Amino acid sequence: MVLIQRDGGFKMVKYKEVAEDIQKRIYANEFNGKLPTEQALIEMYDVSRNTIRSAINILVKRGSIHKVQGSGLYINRKTTDDKTIINLSVKIGLTRLLPKSTITSEVLDFHIFPADAAMAQEFNCDPETLIYRVKRLRMIDGKPLAIENSYYNKDIVKYLDKNIVKNSIYSYIENDLKMDIRFSDEYISMKRLSDEECHLLNLNQGSSCLMIKEINFLRNSAIFNVSETLYNSDHIALYAPVQRD
Amino acid sequence: MVLIQRDGGFKMVKYKEVAEDIQKRIYANEFNGKLPTEQALIEMYDVSRNTIRSAINILVKRGSIHKVQGSGLYINRKTTDDKTIINLSVKIGLTRLLPKSTITSEVLDFHIFPADAAMAQEFNCDPETLIYRVKRLRMIDGKPLAIENSYYNKDIVKYLDKNIVKNSIYSYIENDLKMDIRFSDEYISMKRLSDEECHLLNLNQGSSCLMIKEINFLRNSAIFNVSETLYNSDHIALYAPVQRD
Repeated sequence: MVLIQRDGGFKMVKYKEVAEDIQKRIYANEFNGKLPTEQALIEMYDVSRNTIRSAINILVKRGSIHKVQGSGLYINRKTTDDKTIINLSVKIGLTRLLPKSTITSEVLDFHIFPADAAMAQEFNCDPETLIYRVKRLRMIDGKPLAIENSYYNKDIVKYLDKNIVKNSIYSYIENDLKMDIRFSDEYISMKRLSDEECHLLNLNQGSSCLMIKEINFLRNSAIFNVSETLYNSDHIALYAPVQRD
Repeated sequence: MVLIQRDGGFKMVKYKEVAEDIQKRIYANEFNGKLPTEQALIEMYDVSRNTIRSAINILVKRGSIHKVQGSGLYINRKTTDDKTIINLSVKIGLTRLLPKSTITSEVLDFHIFPADAAMAQEFNCDPETLIYRVKRLRMIDGKPLAIENSYYNKDIVKYLDKNIVKNSIYSYIENDLKMDIRFSDEYISMKRLSDEECHLLNLNQGSSCLMIKEINFLRNSAIFNVSETLYNSDHIALYAPVQRD
């Protein structure tokens, strides 16, 4: 039986724990292209068939594995061109998404301001609502990976400080504030970088980057976070698994 | 009761028909930010509650609408910066995805060749398997939108010709060949364009673009199509709706 290591004391639903553990083993190349059978997984984790099936469904939705009828569960090979792949379907923050790398953050700006008309429209909130602004340079194994411009509605995310935003803000929101992050709209486009942005990302002047704009919602459909992240596209590819209707 | 227009005689499952019809009405701004109630939709379409619920689930997964518990079904506003939005979660081909625009294609290359080692690995097929190559310039309302380099395994897609590839290849595969396109892996990155590509897309020399590499699977997990599409990023943003596990 596999003993699942808890994630910093954060209690997850059982099938999510199992999904996370299988995911870690996939990243660590512990399986040879194919998962053990459903029955073998039930015995490994000492859980019910339903729990294993729910865990498998999560991994299928993420594009980590796929089922072949009558043959088993296959691990999807990734074509990367040696770039780090960010899976758009997995909303768990960079820190947990790239477990083989060390993600660090330098806080470039942290302040609070009353929403102007444009920001109020983004958040679907009243003008003058207080908004946290966090600008961070995110680094992967010490190299600049992305510039993140992120905004949080203070009516919803009641408290942030410079110390908190040095680490994973999503972990704080979920584990400490116990908020239920549910879905997000992500818009991917290309952006020409300013000279300052090129400098921060260690790119030649005039370079472009991949920009992801995210609008993030809680279960009750409140928008708690809007962000624009500029990725150094030399090192990054985005991955989206798509199931047909 | 709403009469649903069939799509070129192609018979869809009922709930998918209803989803497509509601989607069209959303594009046409027929609702005022909010869908009619479930009961009203049941009466409009003269179908069962289950059919409406399945249709609604499709639209939620696509990020077209979202549910607010106890309040109803809201239409998601799209932030676009005036760019055409391509929804990565909707695998129905550009022609149906952008119904307000006219998509045309110029065939730049069409030929057949035996797979070399690299292509055989892409398709997970034997070397020497015959592969169709289709290179198209895709245009939106007469303006260059994308260069598509697409490959089809002839063992699976038995027949293509220059006339077929002038139009929607996906419609042909689904409606004429009756094949069941199921899921795809999509990789998004940035690519610096060659001079020829800049010329085709009407961009300055040295421009970059958004590149989407797609690996497309049938229900039995066979890879029938691999493609790389270079999008003129001046006019395009990609959209991905993400639900949390």
